[in-house]
Amino acid sequence: MYRPQITVVDCTIRDGGLMNKSQFTLDCVQAVYKAICESGVHIVELGYRNSRKMFDPEKYGAWRFCDDDMIKKVVGDKKYPYTKIAVMMDAHKSSIEDLLPKEKSLVDVVRCATYVKDIDKCIMIVNDAVAKGYETTINIMSISTAPERELNEALQQIKEETKIKACYIVDSFGNLYSEDIDYFVSKYQKLLPGIEVGVHMHNNQQLAFANTIEGIIRGANYMDGTLYGLGRGAGNCCLELLLGFLKNPKFNMRPLLDVIGSHIIPLQKEINWGYSVPYMITGIMNRHPEEAIKLMMLPEKDPTKYNFRTFYERMLDPEP
Amino acid sequence: MYRPQITVVDCTIRDGGLMNKSQFTLDCVQAVYKAICESGVHIVELGYRNSRKMFDPEKYGAWRFCDDDMIKKVVGDKKYPYTKIAVMMDAHKSSIEDLLPKEKSLVDVVRCATYVKDIDKCIMIVNDAVAKGYETTINIMSISTAPERELNEALQQIKEETKIKACYIVDSFGNLYSEDIDYFVSKYQKLLPGIEVGVHMHNNQQLAFANTIEGIIRGANYMDGTLYGLGRGAGNCCLELLLGFLKNPKFNMRPLLDVIGSHIIPLQKEINWGYSVPYMITGIMNRHPEEAIKLMMLPEKDPTKYNFRTFYERMLDPEP
Repeated sequence: MYRPQITVVDCTIRDGGLMNKSQFTLDCVQAVYKAICESGVHIVELGYRNSRKMFDPEKYGAWRFCDDDMIKKVVGDKKYPYTKIAVMMDAHKSSIEDLLPKEKSLVDVVRCATYVKDIDKCIMIVNDAVAKGYETTINIMSISTAPERELNEALQQIKEETKIKACYIVDSFGNLYSEDIDYFVSKYQKLLPGIEVGVHMHNNQQLAFANTIEGIIRGANYMDGTLYGLGRGAGNCCLELLLGFLKNPKFNMRPLLDVIGSHIIPLQKEINWGYSVPYMITGIMNRHPEEAIKLMMLPEKDPTKYNFRTFYERMLDPEP
Repeated sequence: MYRPQITVVDCTIRDGGLMNKSQFTLDCVQAVYKAICESGVHIVELGYRNSRKMFDPEKYGAWRFCDDDMIKKVVGDKKYPYTKIAVMMDAHKSSIEDLLPKEKSLVDVVRCATYVKDIDKCIMIVNDAVAKGYETTINIMSISTAPERELNEALQQIKEETKIKACYIVDSFGNLYSEDIDYFVSKYQKLLPGIEVGVHMHNNQQLAFANTIEGIIRGANYMDGTLYGLGRGAGNCCLELLLGFLKNPKFNMRPLLDVIGSHIIPLQKEINWGYSVPYMITGIMNRHPEEAIKLMMLPEKDPTKYNFRTFYERMLDPEP
């Protein structure tokens, strides 16, 4: 039996954009948008609404900024009525000036990603977005390294100072085990009454889908997935797996299968995401995947590329 | 805190052999053997001890038969004293004539893989092996499709008629969710007092590692893994992830990292294992992965290779 409160969010273009500087073709984003809408998924996130002052538009693609004009091009003649459109604003890399009032935009949901230390910037952004008419969520990144006291204070602030719909546990490093999910979901539920708990998981330890299920079992009602797991490093919870697990009869797997075959698999030639030993190592060690991504990007012939032991020792003891 | 009762089994060469007709080079098997022993893993399975009457030695490699002479070549001058050597006998494809008395063999453990329907053959094999001096386990395959009443009867027989050390839940199709693991572990514990529960998981839904952890949490003490997940179709629980999770201070990750880099990653050029959409589809639909493997083996240029929807419809309704 399915739980009607569950909201599924596709963030393929947004999280995948961390692997290609958000340089997807318009055709690809249109195909993803259409497939997600036709699959019955509740929210599709088309990219970041980040600031051009922080990201050079010469280097980053359109989906790092998600101008309302670009979103219009994605949607085309008619917006699917059921699936809401989201953009993500990084608390420390975006500006409230870049957000038009809701009635002038096709965007429905603003998700603000933040580190615990930036919670005040984040609250300013979501409160501005709510005032402009948007639904909002807060996505607390790198939760596996957040100091407990600061996290508790941030959650307290969120409860007292915002009107967000959901607050996310974001396992940026792919470090968490199921027992950690239980711990954080319980904490959020206790400290954030009336606010839904969300889970956004990374696959460094091949636990992104399992931890998402664990979140569901514990009562989280917002969950992120991406097509074929496309996302930073080891990638995310696969949306197709999530739809296979959830029993909501409104969901339709077929459009997802089509777009994975036509648009996502071909991206593997340019973007190398998914489980690999270096990501496992950073995940287990609770570290940002950037060093693992660098190793993965070395050419095949580089003799250090598959010297996993050296990488392991370096991660164990980064400043010898 | 680690649980000293836990026994970890590496079955890289055995399960991986299902993807290459057990045609690994001696060098590769030697390297895997050495790495597993040096990592502190308890048991290393070097292949099948199956019958030459069922498998043509012209087509299948040495590790489908694991003659004692071949095992001697793997071990070389000195056997590592801590790590036991296992072979797997398929209940329906092996012969007790092929098993020498323990004192004439380097093998320590005989694992008998069986479908529920072949339980009598299986019991004959393990009882013969026990009489010859080996430790034994029974690995009940395709448990997700086993008729409940027949499974219960088989477990009853195992309890009454054998002296095995452990009985495995084998998720051959990669179909099970954590709640199913809980169900089967409880059933085994109830029906098999004094016999350890084992878990052997496949990764069709990216749940092999998570389901292995779930087994551990519920009290299973035998668990299978393979290097980098090498195994049939979507592959198995990654041994490196398992060692990262278990806290036994005797374990050493480094030899595993070395051999994955030197011997397992290069196999990816010949063997295509790991998560992919066709395996997800057969996993969700609780079907054998053979049709998915056929699809995965099509050349890149074949237009049906990435037509996942057609495959999905065919799996939904195999005999229209």
